[in-house]
Amino acid sequence: MQTTIMTVEEIRALATDTLRAHGCDEANAAAIAENMTQAERAGAASHGLFRLAGHVTNLKNGRANGAAKPILEKLGPATLRVNGDGGFAPLAQKIGLDPLAEAARETGIAALAITRTMHYAALWPEVSVLAEQGLAAMAMTSSPPFVAPAGGTKPFFGTNPMAFAWPRKDAAPMVWDQAASVTARGEVMLHKMAGKPMPDGSGLDADGNPTTDPDAILTGAQLPFGGYKGASLALMIDLMAGPLIGEVCSFEAGPPNNTLGGPSEGGEIILAFDPTHFAGAGALDHGERLFEALLTQEGTRLPGARRGPAREKSDQEGVAIANETLAKIQALGS
Amino acid sequence: MQTTIMTVEEIRALATDTLRAHGCDEANAAAIAENMTQAERAGAASHGLFRLAGHVTNLKNGRANGAAKPILEKLGPATLRVNGDGGFAPLAQKIGLDPLAEAARETGIAALAITRTMHYAALWPEVSVLAEQGLAAMAMTSSPPFVAPAGGTKPFFGTNPMAFAWPRKDAAPMVWDQAASVTARGEVMLHKMAGKPMPDGSGLDADGNPTTDPDAILTGAQLPFGGYKGASLALMIDLMAGPLIGEVCSFEAGPPNNTLGGPSEGGEIILAFDPTHFAGAGALDHGERLFEALLTQEGTRLPGARRGPAREKSDQEGVAIANETLAKIQALGS
Repeated sequence: MQTTIMTVEEIRALATDTLRAHGCDEANAAAIAENMTQAERAGAASHGLFRLAGHVTNLKNGRANGAAKPILEKLGPATLRVNGDGGFAPLAQKIGLDPLAEAARETGIAALAITRTMHYAALWPEVSVLAEQGLAAMAMTSSPPFVAPAGGTKPFFGTNPMAFAWPRKDAAPMVWDQAASVTARGEVMLHKMAGKPMPDGSGLDADGNPTTDPDAILTGAQLPFGGYKGASLALMIDLMAGPLIGEVCSFEAGPPNNTLGGPSEGGEIILAFDPTHFAGAGALDHGERLFEALLTQEGTRLPGARRGPAREKSDQEGVAIANETLAKIQALGS
Repeated sequence: MQTTIMTVEEIRALATDTLRAHGCDEANAAAIAENMTQAERAGAASHGLFRLAGHVTNLKNGRANGAAKPILEKLGPATLRVNGDGGFAPLAQKIGLDPLAEAARETGIAALAITRTMHYAALWPEVSVLAEQGLAAMAMTSSPPFVAPAGGTKPFFGTNPMAFAWPRKDAAPMVWDQAASVTARGEVMLHKMAGKPMPDGSGLDADGNPTTDPDAILTGAQLPFGGYKGASLALMIDLMAGPLIGEVCSFEAGPPNNTLGGPSEGGEIILAFDPTHFAGAGALDHGERLFEALLTQEGTRLPGARRGPAREKSDQEGVAIANETLAKIQALGS
C-alpha cells in the first residue's frame, strides 16, 4: 500500500477544508476534523481521513446536515439529551460532554443520550474526554446491520461498539473501545483495500459460509466476537443506544449510507461515573494499584496503551496516509 | 452422574434448614435459599445447592456473618449503597433493589453499590427483579483471581460476570448473565465432578499451557472469552465493582475461600435505567419490535430464553440434584 506522510496539522487542515468545501459550517467542520485528526494521530486509520469521502457523500446527498445546531436538554439531575439536528456526531458530543461531566460530579452517575446524529462509531474520543476530567465513562452506539447474531447467518446487529475509560493519576486515561463483532467495520474495509484476508472466524459470505475474504464478508455478515457472548453484548448495545433513548436499532438503520464508509443515523448513550462519589478520594489510587499489579504480575499492557506512543510518533514524524484515501478525497472536488 | 429428583419446595427447605442449622438467621437463610432455589429451578445448577457446602464453610470459619443486618444509604438522588455487614449478598440485594428501582424511576438512571458482602456471582436474579418492574438493568461483580489476562498466563481477573436485563411487555424479561471468562467457575467445577473435558480455549494449566482438563484449569487459569476483548470487559468489571465503589479488585480478593465453591468477599454494582424517561411510553414496544425481528428474521432465540421453560419443567417434574452434592450437604451435619 503506497502512502504519503502528512503532519497532524496537514491532516486537520485537509479534513477541515474538505468538509467546509462540501457544506459543513465552521463549527461542524472543526469538530469532525478534530475527531478524524485524533484518530489518525492515535494510529486508528479506520476512523481517520479514510472516512472523509463517506462524510462528503452524506453531505452531498442531503442525509447529513452540515450546519447542524445541536440542542442540549437537561432531563433531570442525572440525565441529559443532545438532539443532533441531523448532523454528524462530533459537534453534538462536544456540546454534551461538559454538562454530562458536571452532572456526574454532582450526582455520582449521569447519562447523556445523543439522538438525531450520524455516527461513525469510534467511541474512545468521548470517553477519554470524560476520563481526563477524573470520571469513569462508558459509551455505546449501534450501526447499520453488519453482524449475524449467534446461530444466525444474515446481518442483524450493528458492529455495536462499546467503550470504557478510567481516569489515571499521572497518565493518560485507560481506554478501550471495541466492536461487539470480531473487528470494526472499517477494519474489514481496510483489509479489502490492502488485499489482506481477515482472521478466521471474522465473518460469513452471503450464503452463510465461513470466509476470511474481506469482500465476501462485506456483502455477507461479520460475526460477533466470542460467539453468543459477543452477540449478547450486541443486543444490549442495540437496546441501550436504541429503544432506551428513542433512537433506531441496527436492524432499523437500513443498509449503510454508501460504500465509502459514510456514517449512519443513530443514537449513542454515554454514562459517566464519579469514582470519588462512592469510594472517596482514594478511588484513583486504588485503580493505580490494579494497573500496577496487572503490568508487573502479568507483564501485559493496558488496553489502549498503544495510543500514547502512537500520538508521540505522529507528532514527531507525521502519519502515513494511504494514497488511495488521498485520491478519493481529491476526487471529491471542491 | 447419579441424581435425585427434588421438588422446588424441597430444594428451598433443604437450603433454608441447612443455612439455619449453621448460623444464618431467618432473614439471611430465606434470602440465600431463595436465590439458590431460583437457580436450580431455572436449570443453573452451578449456582444452586452445589454452593451450599461452600456457604456453610464460610459460616463455620467465621468469614461470613450469618446474621448480617445490611444497611441502606441514599447517597444522592441517583445513587444508593448497601453495606452488607459481612453477610452473603442476597439479603443486601433484597434491601437495595426496590429503592434502586424507585430512584431510577425518579431520575431515569440510578446506581446501587453493594459492599461488604460475600457473593457467588449469579447476577441474573437481581437484574430480573428490576426488569420485572419495567427497568433496564446492568450488574457487575468481581471474584477471586481465576482468569489470566490476554497475553498472561497466571490468574489475575475474576470470572467477573456482567448481567443485563430488558423489560418485556407480555413476557418474562430478556436477561443475560455471562462471565468475562469462557465459562463460569462453577461450570469448571461441575465438569470436574462429572469427569468431562472443558471446551477448547477454556484455560491453561499451572505451567501456562492450554488444556481442557477441568482439574488442571482449576489449579491453572481460566481464559477470557474472545481473547483481549473479554479481558477488556474483565478489567472494566474489576474497576466498576472495585475501585469505583470502594471494594476489592479480583487480584486483592486473594485465593478462593474454600474448595467447595464458597462465595468470596467483594462488591457489586447494579445500574437501573427507566426507558420511559428518555424515550417515552413507546420504549418497550420498540424493544418488542427488536426481539420480534431477531426471532423471525434470524430464527435464533433470545438470551436467557431457556430459563422460562426450565422453570415450568422444574415446577412440574422437580429438579435432578447430583447425589454428590446431596452427600456433601449431608456431611455438613446439623
